Amino acid sequence: MNDQLDHQQIDFDKMQGLLPAIVQDAASGEVLMLGFMNREAYEQTLQAGYVTFFSRTRSQLWTKGETSGNRLELVSAATDCDRDTVLLQVRVLGEGVVCHLGTRSCFTQSLPFRAEAERSLP
Amino acid sequence: MNDQLDHQQIDFDKMQGLLPAIVQDAASGEVLMLGFMNREAYEQTLQAGYVTFFSRTRSQLWTKGETSGNRLELVSAATDCDRDTVLLQVRVLGEGVVCHLGTRSCFTQSLPFRAEAERSLP
Repeated sequence: MNDQLDHQQIDFDKMQGLLPAIVQDAASGEVLMLGFMNREAYEQTLQAGYVTFFSRTRSQLWTKGETSGNRLELVSAATDCDRDTVLLQVRVLGEGVVCHLGTRSCFTQSLPFRAEAERSLP
Repeated sequence: MNDQLDHQQIDFDKMQGLLPAIVQDAASGEVLMLGFMNREAYEQTLQAGYVTFFSRTRSQLWTKGETSGNRLELVSAATDCDRDTVLLQVRVLGEGVVCHLGTRSCFTQSLPFRAEAERSLP
C-alpha cells in the first residue's frame, strides 16, 4: 500500500454508479465473495467499519451479516490503479460463514479447464 | 471446491454480457487485479490456460501480458454461488508484475477509514 487517497477520487462512473468490491479474509488470504457498492454503501462501509453492499437485485443497501450475525469487520481497504475496484480485507464475525449456502467462501464451484487436464497427464 | 460445473451455467446476463474475474496469486494469496470477461474471453482463458479479458474501454479481447510477457498462467478457477463472478488463481510469468504502473498487484492505494483510526487510538 503506497498511498492514501481521497474518497472522492473513487470512480463510480465506469459501472453506472457501482463499484465492484472484493472481500478477502485478512488472516488467511482466502477470497470470500464479490459484491457491489454504490457511493452510499461505500461511504457507510468506511464510516462504520463493517461491509455494506448495494444489492442489485433488491436495489437497496445491504449490510452483510446484519441478520445472520456474520458481519464483515473491515481490517484494511485499498483501491486499484484506475480506482474503479476496491479490495476489502476483513475479519468475519459470528460463525465465520460468508456464503448463504453455508460455506466460508462463495467460491466453491471449481471450473475445469483444458490446460489443467493436459498438465495432469502422465 | 465442492463441485465442477458446466461452463454454460456461468451467468453473463447480470452484467450485460460481462463477468467480473478476480485474479489472485496462487502461491501467496495476494489479490492482483480485477478484470472483466465476455463469454469469448472466458472460453479462451479456460481453453488456453492463460488469462484473457475483455477490455471495456477498447471493446476487444486482451490477453494479459501478451506484450509485456507477464502472462497469467491459470492454476485453478472457481465460480461463486450465483455463478456471476469467477476467481482465478494464477502464476504470474515474466517479471511477475501485474499492474501497468510496475507493481505486482494493482491494489496499491490504501483507503483510510474511521473505524481504523478509532481502533488505533491509545
